[in-house]
Amino acid sequence: MKVAKFGGSSLADAGQFEKAAAIIRADSERRLIVVSAPGKRHAEDIKTTDLLVTLAADVLENGPVEESLQAVKERYESIVRGLGLSGNPAAETEQQLRKLIDEYKTDPPRLMDALMASGENENAKVMAAYLQSLGETARYLSPEEAGMVVTDEPANARILPEAYARLKKLREEEGILVIPGFFGVSKAGHIVTFPRGGSDISGSIVAAGVEASLYENFTDVDSVYSVNPSLVENPKEMKQLTYREMRELAYAGFSVFHDEALLPVVAKKVPIAIKNTNHPDAPGTRITAEREREGLPVIGIASDSGFVTINLTKYLMNREVGFGRNLLNILAEEGISFEHTPSGIDNMSIIVREEYLNETAEARILERIRQELNVEEVHVERNLAMVMVVGEGMASTVGVASKATTALSEAGVNIKMINQGSSEVSMMFGVNAQDADLAVKSLYKACFEKEPV
Amino acid sequence: MKVAKFGGSSLADAGQFEKAAAIIRADSERRLIVVSAPGKRHAEDIKTTDLLVTLAADVLENGPVEESLQAVKERYESIVRGLGLSGNPAAETEQQLRKLIDEYKTDPPRLMDALMASGENENAKVMAAYLQSLGETARYLSPEEAGMVVTDEPANARILPEAYARLKKLREEEGILVIPGFFGVSKAGHIVTFPRGGSDISGSIVAAGVEASLYENFTDVDSVYSVNPSLVENPKEMKQLTYREMRELAYAGFSVFHDEALLPVVAKKVPIAIKNTNHPDAPGTRITAEREREGLPVIGIASDSGFVTINLTKYLMNREVGFGRNLLNILAEEGISFEHTPSGIDNMSIIVREEYLNETAEARILERIRQELNVEEVHVERNLAMVMVVGEGMASTVGVASKATTALSEAGVNIKMINQGSSEVSMMFGVNAQDADLAVKSLYKACFEKEPV
Repeated sequence: MKVAKFGGSSLADAGQFEKAAAIIRADSERRLIVVSAPGKRHAEDIKTTDLLVTLAADVLENGPVEESLQAVKERYESIVRGLGLSGNPAAETEQQLRKLIDEYKTDPPRLMDALMASGENENAKVMAAYLQSLGETARYLSPEEAGMVVTDEPANARILPEAYARLKKLREEEGILVIPGFFGVSKAGHIVTFPRGGSDISGSIVAAGVEASLYENFTDVDSVYSVNPSLVENPKEMKQLTYREMRELAYAGFSVFHDEALLPVVAKKVPIAIKNTNHPDAPGTRITAEREREGLPVIGIASDSGFVTINLTKYLMNREVGFGRNLLNILAEEGISFEHTPSGIDNMSIIVREEYLNETAEARILERIRQELNVEEVHVERNLAMVMVVGEGMASTVGVASKATTALSEAGVNIKMINQGSSEVSMMFGVNAQDADLAVKSLYKACFEKEPV
Repeated sequence: MKVAKFGGSSLADAGQFEKAAAIIRADSERRLIVVSAPGKRHAEDIKTTDLLVTLAADVLENGPVEESLQAVKERYESIVRGLGLSGNPAAETEQQLRKLIDEYKTDPPRLMDALMASGENENAKVMAAYLQSLGETARYLSPEEAGMVVTDEPANARILPEAYARLKKLREEEGILVIPGFFGVSKAGHIVTFPRGGSDISGSIVAAGVEASLYENFTDVDSVYSVNPSLVENPKEMKQLTYREMRELAYAGFSVFHDEALLPVVAKKVPIAIKNTNHPDAPGTRITAEREREGLPVIGIASDSGFVTINLTKYLMNREVGFGRNLLNILAEEGISFEHTPSGIDNMSIIVREEYLNETAEARILERIRQELNVEEVHVERNLAMVMVVGEGMASTVGVASKATTALSEAGVNIKMINQGSSEVSMMFGVNAQDADLAVKSLYKACFEKEPV
């Protein structure tokens, strides 16, 4: 039993629906289908989800809503018409949106969640109807019926553990089930959307729940590349990578597969296949628990900016039992998660994502560190980027560090921090944000274009 | 006003006493003299302190003490005779030792402290008498009179803050004051010795207390070398280094100047001069708050073994506010200080000195980590060494990381960890203990014997 998730571009119009349906029908194992909302048909197009955000904004401003409502309706009408479906599903969509507006118009966060989720929800109904029209035993399954029980905080749904047992029962269902991605239903009965990577998270949860043999993620690229293709021409494709490698790359800005979407399948070791709806015969990229290590020890290079370090100095810090704990306790009490804590002998840096450390928080935390930890010096440095060189077993390969640091040195990039821990999956370089692209390019060149290590 | 501390080899016999006295008399600023116990006169000789340890052991075993007591007495007799001192100071020494034995024979730790401290104490008396015999205004000053008030735990004295105000009054004294190193006196009136680097600590405390213009540390080497001379032939001498550089080198096994001995002078910014009693005109090595940065960015290379890592893995660890705090809290509650915490995305290593993590502690801590932090995996790795490449501003110099990692790679050393934080004074490489010497040699060669970075 496979779970196939189709992204927005794979369902942008009737033609894309036809491709997706053909893919579903080509393999009888594809029994659980998770769909996104219709995406962009061309570069200047507006995604359905964004049309729905405009609609929600119009409602909340008490302005006229007909125009934005019609824009949404027209997207579905054009798909339904193109697919030659009978009945008037787009009218039902309109009715459903009006119902949600009435229900939630005084509750802005819930209204936003409910309307945004409609993009996926209505699309799942269309896909189910289309598959039926093709003669398949298929039906729309709401997240509520599916058992996708989530926490109740708007725009930040987390799956509840009990959902998995309920989802497992879907194994016994006949035919094809089409489930909308991006949201679940809380115990209070509210529609709540997942954070970043929403529909990927839904697909992953369903795949883990039914213990699928494969989680297929259909998108519009043939493969995941070893480096951001906007930085390097014709970058190497990754045929297979491990969950850990994907996770490290996703961490550092690879947007292919968000790490929260990885978590459910990792727990159940369900392999992932990233495939192209427009080119389904391409092998795509597999993400699995283990892989054969062959060829290059480095599989990918990524970077992400927006990091800040808090740097502090205190003589004999390492002799002081509890110093590190007391320091991290201040961060924990301020609700701040940290990324890394590289240290020298008498100094320590805490790397934090910039979004967690605004000026007020910074002032308060520095004051607490000075007062409570009696440090000699503490200051904050902003505009840092993390560049990650990723590959299973890489860090245990003699020479990778040398190759990487030489490449950065030759490119004139000053390495502000190096962090290589026990994972043996990655090596992290802290550089100034303005050096990040140059760092990635020079590392790619050294690791992939020169002879292998 | 300068503080001059003479080590054991500088006071091993009458000939060395003459050299030390000549040095003291050559500069009228040398007003506070801190002395060690007589050290080895030749490679097979036994240090006075070790003779005293034997004496203490004999006392505690209720065995005959005369032989070991006479051995100590004879060391002083030979010095006193060689210096042609009048009176019978060695007999006084014997009397003093018998008194201490009587006083402390039922309290082993105190007996050990009191007898060991006698080595320095009696030597200070001899030096004062010798300086007087040469016509100098000089006197022995006990740590008690000097105001060296310390905590009361045997063999682990820490100076009490109030000592500094008392020591400052010594500025007003006339003539030369000779103070024994290695111990202080607790408020309860007990002799308590300092931990590792004892007499250096005393000298540093006195220098900080009197706010000396210079703390001269007389030993038996012309200079501090850039690398352990037993690993590299004719290594480069360090003319000047900063406190921070010395601290990083001392941390990683440079035994020249222990970091606890640095602390007092660092606080008061008293410069240190490491000089050779046997060659007082050699420029020696200066340790100061700042130095001119010129030539090589790397000043020294050191390594220390006996490290252990606790490695743990947990998915999305970095999103969990408080995870790091909770982890370090377990260590703090177990009384364990840690050295570094290099981390990947979902994993973290805690580097601890092996002595703090015996098998019982290891089992208990791993169990707590598993239970309380719900990690996916945790294990301990032993037999690690840390190799430090040290130099002010080094880490901000493009190319040092490249040079260092290339040297290690070419030598076939697998770098298990790299930690370069914000200090810009050092770069740390974690390697297997058996690779440490090779790592140091290859790094020395790359940083000092090839053309500079």
